Amino acid sequence: MEPEEDIPFVKRPKSERGWMRIAKKRLPILDWGPRYDRITAVADLVAGITLGLTLVPQSIAYASLANLPVQYGLYSSFVGTMLYVFLGTVKEVSIGPTSLMALFTLQVCRGLPVEFVVLLTFLSGCIVLIMGLLRLGFLVELISPSVTSGFTSATAVIIVVAQLKGLLGLSFTAESVSDNIRNIINKWDNLRYADCALGAVCCTVLLLLRQLKDVKVNPKRTKLKRALWLLSIGRNALVVLAASTLAYCIHNPEKPLFKLSGRVEPGLPALSAPPFSVALDNSTVQFVDMVQQLGSAIVMLPIVMVLANIAIAKAFCTGGRVDATQEMVTLGLCNMAGSLVHAMPTCGAFTRSAVSHSSGVRTPAAGAYSGIITLLALIFLTQYFYYIPKACLSSVLICAVIFMIDYRTVVRLWRRDRQELAVLVLTFCVSVARTVELAVLCGALASLAVLLRRLMRPRLQINHVKSSAGEVVRVRAALGVTYVNCALVEARALAAARRAAPRPALLDCGQLAMLDYAGQQALERLIKQLKDSDQKLIIYNVPVDLLKKFEQVSGVDARPLRATNINSALALADAPSEERAALLAEQV
Amino acid sequence: MEPEEDIPFVKRPKSERGWMRIAKKRLPILDWGPRYDRITAVADLVAGITLGLTLVPQSIAYASLANLPVQYGLYSSFVGTMLYVFLGTVKEVSIGPTSLMALFTLQVCRGLPVEFVVLLTFLSGCIVLIMGLLRLGFLVELISPSVTSGFTSATAVIIVVAQLKGLLGLSFTAESVSDNIRNIINKWDNLRYADCALGAVCCTVLLLLRQLKDVKVNPKRTKLKRALWLLSIGRNALVVLAASTLAYCIHNPEKPLFKLSGRVEPGLPALSAPPFSVALDNSTVQFVDMVQQLGSAIVMLPIVMVLANIAIAKAFCTGGRVDATQEMVTLGLCNMAGSLVHAMPTCGAFTRSAVSHSSGVRTPAAGAYSGIITLLALIFLTQYFYYIPKACLSSVLICAVIFMIDYRTVVRLWRRDRQELAVLVLTFCVSVARTVELAVLCGALASLAVLLRRLMRPRLQINHVKSSAGEVVRVRAALGVTYVNCALVEARALAAARRAAPRPALLDCGQLAMLDYAGQQALERLIKQLKDSDQKLIIYNVPVDLLKKFEQVSGVDARPLRATNINSALALADAPSEERAALLAEQV
Repeated sequence: MEPEEDIPFVKRPKSERGWMRIAKKRLPILDWGPRYDRITAVADLVAGITLGLTLVPQSIAYASLANLPVQYGLYSSFVGTMLYVFLGTVKEVSIGPTSLMALFTLQVCRGLPVEFVVLLTFLSGCIVLIMGLLRLGFLVELISPSVTSGFTSATAVIIVVAQLKGLLGLSFTAESVSDNIRNIINKWDNLRYADCALGAVCCTVLLLLRQLKDVKVNPKRTKLKRALWLLSIGRNALVVLAASTLAYCIHNPEKPLFKLSGRVEPGLPALSAPPFSVALDNSTVQFVDMVQQLGSAIVMLPIVMVLANIAIAKAFCTGGRVDATQEMVTLGLCNMAGSLVHAMPTCGAFTRSAVSHSSGVRTPAAGAYSGIITLLALIFLTQYFYYIPKACLSSVLICAVIFMIDYRTVVRLWRRDRQELAVLVLTFCVSVARTVELAVLCGALASLAVLLRRLMRPRLQINHVKSSAGEVVRVRAALGVTYVNCALVEARALAAARRAAPRPALLDCGQLAMLDYAGQQALERLIKQLKDSDQKLIIYNVPVDLLKKFEQVSGVDARPLRATNINSALALADAPSEERAALLAEQV
Repeated sequence: MEPEEDIPFVKRPKSERGWMRIAKKRLPILDWGPRYDRITAVADLVAGITLGLTLVPQSIAYASLANLPVQYGLYSSFVGTMLYVFLGTVKEVSIGPTSLMALFTLQVCRGLPVEFVVLLTFLSGCIVLIMGLLRLGFLVELISPSVTSGFTSATAVIIVVAQLKGLLGLSFTAESVSDNIRNIINKWDNLRYADCALGAVCCTVLLLLRQLKDVKVNPKRTKLKRALWLLSIGRNALVVLAASTLAYCIHNPEKPLFKLSGRVEPGLPALSAPPFSVALDNSTVQFVDMVQQLGSAIVMLPIVMVLANIAIAKAFCTGGRVDATQEMVTLGLCNMAGSLVHAMPTCGAFTRSAVSHSSGVRTPAAGAYSGIITLLALIFLTQYFYYIPKACLSSVLICAVIFMIDYRTVVRLWRRDRQELAVLVLTFCVSVARTVELAVLCGALASLAVLLRRLMRPRLQINHVKSSAGEVVRVRAALGVTYVNCALVEARALAAARRAAPRPALLDCGQLAMLDYAGQQALERLIKQLKDSDQKLIIYNVPVDLLKKFEQVSGVDARPLRATNINSALALADAPSEERAALLAEQV
């Protein structure tokens, strides 16, 4: 048999010297920087500007979704994007505010001062960094696709419902989906028709512009195609610009036609350490109390953050290998740095990565250009942000997230695996009814339960087989004999063996992959019980890596363990010691 | 291939009519009752009386361990033992107070009125009954032998430490092991030498008597052997009787030489409904508050109860098949009925089952006789219980539980599996430092983590194999491709396949036992990525029960799935459709 090869998950060319290889792995700009040329720079510039035009309106919208003053969205956009240039490994990833992070922030920090949000950003960054350094990325593997699909769809639904009030021109604060719906019904009479009309127009325009890039044009007319594509990609910026201009032109300070975003703090954010205490209601809330208030979100937010980021990195990393550790370290540092400029929690966003990808991005340097656009917006445009109509921002959000509702997975799981569909539905329902973090936890536990259930009831074939010693009973167990199923395996094997008595019973371990202490004990009991009634248990076809485990079982006949078929197992078990060597040599 | 047989876990002869079979299954006395004869009755009588002589002193000791007046131990002993006669399936099991239940009760109800204990008994009974009816017995399988060993040893240590004060004649209340030790050191000067001496004598006598039954005598002198055995079995009753007589004779009400048990409520307990509210500090504590006070113990205690009972049933059930549902229903009813006579939580005890077994018990009817002995003790002996020295009760407890310290499993796990040893040590430490219920939970989670870790890193053999199509790469995965490991499997298989390009890569699924939706998606991505670079992935040797799952994978070549070796898989994958049928017929 050929030796097993062990291929590491992430592999780099080993031609360079150790320290250089490590430096390039941990600071990837050292790798691609020296090769950076004018053509690449132009491609990155185009992609970066396009990305910037998506990033600015998205940032504003996500800040308002998280119930923060809109400038905080922009504060969150430039640090991550720029730091990723130096540390990032996947050129399409753009670290910044996302709908998921905004929703999380909203659910955790609702009604709390903005200092809590910034502290959450900082702590999440620390935990992601620690997770990266401790190589805890495997935790993300505990979140199954059903859970991901469920909570993504739920996020979309929650955001759409939460944004309806903006679209309808209503004002209220609501905690949950049901709260939102109840409020909308109660305040239906206060509906502002101007906002409704603006929202409807914005949504229609956004959805139409979204279709533009798929419009079929004469393939020769590349310029038209490119223009349509740019129009489609820049649709958020375009709609926000148009709506704000309209609001600015018809502005009447006494009686504004639309609900507007209101005054925005102009200029760059002040650099300051993350807030470890905050003044609230004439008293100071200390760090420990702030952390208690944030609660389990301090652990769940980083996990969701890493999950989202690694999923995006995997989807766009063409080589198929993501350096999860490096991505986590980067994400952690981006958030820690972000907290110095009052950022909300950030991670990669699918929408922006798709924009980068289709804009022909070549290196992570594109992020620098979009970062600069955000900075310019902060410096020169904040005074005009006053005029962005709320209905317009709601439209931008709604039209972005409705496509996150993942009905395809539901249809597929309905056909393939109803148990996993149940996990998806559970995650979705808990997300909508309670919070996203609780839902991820419940979903992860439910997925584990489904997996565990399969382990508890392994495939167990019991056959009567003709052999050199007449008809014998053969038990073939799959998966493993572990503490979760050994009682079942023992009882079934014993019952099967009893009916074949006094002929030996055979246990084929060819498909077995685990044997733990409880399994060993179960085998010991089985062997002893059969021995008490003068029956033999012959264990054979044991995989090489389990041989030692089987040899530790007291009372086991070690001779036939390596035999690969019934007859040689029977022969080895019966053979007196002098014949053994010859048989073994012949067999193995 | 022969058809798979499905052997049910519990199987009864099907000769009888349906309703009679069910009646006998649920009320086993209907099964053995009609066959009950004089010889069996005599055997049961001897065993029952012997058991009674163990049960009475044990009950008193366990009540004092749980910090309850000693009569509560006896209240707990007769209902369970008698009910088990009608409902029980394993003749050796004796439901009554145990060290584990007493310790649990102590940790949960410390400082609370006795009504809480009775309510705990009732609620635990209800939950065990519900678990039985819902067939939730499988939950017990989630507690691995390492956890069981860890918390059993810890229980023994906690009890020994808690009883030291009785042995030394000290008085204090202590919450934990460290608390006990600190108190003993602080109060060392108050040591009562009379109690110490009595305790030392009692312990020595108990340990010596324990050895008696193993003393080698002339095999012809059966009467001597029987006498020695009886002396050994009845040692607890004997020692308690002797010490109490001594205390009674030298009793001086002004200045008692030994610390005594004190006044005991005489007579039978009054029959009353479980207390759903209790007067405490001039106010009434309602049911909901009582339940809150009891907390998670309401769920953990029943699980430990069932675990202990099923473990005992399994150990003594010679047929090897325990009707777990029936045992749980019985245990639940015993506790619910017990709560009507103020019982503390009860379950089967290993020590008593061993006594029954070695006394030659024949049917569960033996329990009736030991129940009667307990009743007689309650009616006629309670007034003498006043004189039982505390040091004597402590000795009985200590000498019973020190043999529960399970160092053998530690030694074995040290040699076989350090991870599981870590689980054992964790359970032990949490039990000693915090509570048994938290320890069982932590231990169960740690066991799951160990299991999960194995699932996350499955055996993955990657070989270069010679075939009819030249050298090809063959990936052979064990266990399953599930959401916890599919990223790893995908990355490794891809890397291996890339190096073999453009020759096809083969995936041997012979040892595979699970494929979930995430695994299907991983295979889809793998097939797509290889297809993009014009390479083929040939999946073969798929177990019958996974065929459908593999056929659902989009892009999969369904033709070679059933092939059992590389060459036929290659041939089937290449074969034009007309050849397929012939090849398939030849192959499968």
